[in-house]
Amino acid sequence: MVMLKGDERLDYLLAENLRIIQSPSVFAFSLDAVLLARFVYVPIQKGNIIDLCSGNGVIPLFLSARTKGNIIGVEIQERLYDMAVRSIEYNNLRERLQMIHGDIKEMPKQLGYGKYDVVTCNPPYFLTPSKEEINPNEHLAIARHEILCTLEDAVKASSQLVRQGGKVAFVHRPGRLMDIITVMRQYRLEPKRIQFVYPKQGKEANTLLIEAIKDGSPDLKILPPLFVYNELGEYTAEVRKILYGEE
Amino acid sequence: MVMLKGDERLDYLLAENLRIIQSPSVFAFSLDAVLLARFVYVPIQKGNIIDLCSGNGVIPLFLSARTKGNIIGVEIQERLYDMAVRSIEYNNLRERLQMIHGDIKEMPKQLGYGKYDVVTCNPPYFLTPSKEEINPNEHLAIARHEILCTLEDAVKASSQLVRQGGKVAFVHRPGRLMDIITVMRQYRLEPKRIQFVYPKQGKEANTLLIEAIKDGSPDLKILPPLFVYNELGEYTAEVRKILYGEE
Repeated sequence: MVMLKGDERLDYLLAENLRIIQSPSVFAFSLDAVLLARFVYVPIQKGNIIDLCSGNGVIPLFLSARTKGNIIGVEIQERLYDMAVRSIEYNNLRERLQMIHGDIKEMPKQLGYGKYDVVTCNPPYFLTPSKEEINPNEHLAIARHEILCTLEDAVKASSQLVRQGGKVAFVHRPGRLMDIITVMRQYRLEPKRIQFVYPKQGKEANTLLIEAIKDGSPDLKILPPLFVYNELGEYTAEVRKILYGEE
Repeated sequence: MVMLKGDERLDYLLAENLRIIQSPSVFAFSLDAVLLARFVYVPIQKGNIIDLCSGNGVIPLFLSARTKGNIIGVEIQERLYDMAVRSIEYNNLRERLQMIHGDIKEMPKQLGYGKYDVVTCNPPYFLTPSKEEINPNEHLAIARHEILCTLEDAVKASSQLVRQGGKVAFVHRPGRLMDIITVMRQYRLEPKRIQFVYPKQGKEANTLLIEAIKDGSPDLKILPPLFVYNELGEYTAEVRKILYGEE
C-alpha cells in the first residue's frame, strides 16, 4: 500500500526489484543517479553510507540492493523528501534506509564528522542563472541549479562527513571536471577513479563519474568509457543491464 | 641521400609520406607522439609552432603535413637532435622546420615570450626513480624520466612561449591528470579539450591528450574515446588511418 499524491507514479527500479515514487511535474530521477549508484564502491556486509542531494531517494534505494549497510539520504526539498520516505516504506527498507529533511551544509554538525564510509552525491549541475532564465518550476530549479547548494558546498560537506580513507563519489557534467577536481583536492579528497559516459560512440562525453578517497595518495585511473545508446538509438547492453538487470 | 649512424633505420611515416630516422638502441617514436600531432589544433596556412622535448623530431615532422606554418623542435639530447636534423634534411623540410639543441627551460629567454601560436610537448612520463631502478640506457632514461625536465618545467616553458589565446597540447599518462591540470592552471593554461586513449574496449585508459588555451575561459570538452586495438589485437580503423592514412 502506498499513498500517491497529485501526478505521482509508482515506477519500477527493475534491476533491483524495487519501486520508486516519481512525479513528472516535481521530480523524476535521471540515468545519472543510477549510474552513480552502480559506479561507487560500497562495502557489502555493513558500513555507513550517506547520500547528499537525494531527491526522491533513488540513489539510497539503488544502493540498498548493493549493500547491507545503513544508508542515509539527505534532501532539502520537503516534497521530494516526502516521496523518498514513502518509497522506503513501500519497499520495506525502513530498517536500514533513513531520510533526513535538511540542508547538507548542516549535516556534519548534526550527524558527526568523519563517521561515514561512503558519501555519494548527484548535485545540481548548473550554475545559478539569472531570474529570467531559471526554471519556473521551483522543484526542478532547485534540483538542477546551484540555488541552495553549490558544488563547493557539496564537496565540503562530503569531506567533513567521510572518514579518513573513506570514499566520496559524485556525478557531474564533464564541463565542470576542472572545478570538481580543484575543489575536491582543496578539501583533501584525492580523485582515484573517473569514468566518462558518452551518449554514443563518436560523441563527446556528457556525464562524469568520479570517486575520491579522503587523504588518499595520488593515483588516478580512467575507467573504460560507458556508452548509453547504440547506433540504433537503443540503450546499450551495458546500460540495459544496469537499468533492467538484463544480461 | 641520408647518413645513417650505428643501428639507425630510415622508417616510414606512411600517412604523411615522410621518412624518419630512428634507432632501437637510442630512440624510436611512440604512438603517443603521433596521436598528439593529430590531436592538436594547428593553423593550416601559417603560424608559429614549437614542439618541446622533440626527441627524433617525430611531432614536427607529422605537423609539417598538417600546416604550412613554421615549426621549431627543441631537444636536449644531442644524439636525438642530430637524428631529427638529418630527417628534416632528408624530407626537404629545412625551409619551415628547424631543430634547436637546447634546454626547454631556456627557450623563452632565447626565443621570446608569447610568440607562439601552438606549443606541443610529449614530455618524459615518469618521476625520476632511484639510481638502481633507472634505465641504464641514458638516452632512454632521459626521454622517459623527469631527469632533465619535470612536468612543471615543460608546462611553465609552454606557458611562457605561447601567446595569449594560443594553444598548448600535451600527451601524458592518465595517472598524472591531476598534476597536469593543476600545473596548467597554475601557469594560466586553461584545459579545453581532453581525449583519453584506451588500449582496447573494456580497458582503462593508458594515454591522455590535453589541449589548453592561454588565459582561456573554463569550458572543458571530453572528446570521444580513442581505442588503439580491436578484439583481434589489430590496430583499429581510426588508428590505422592516423598511422598509415588508410580509410
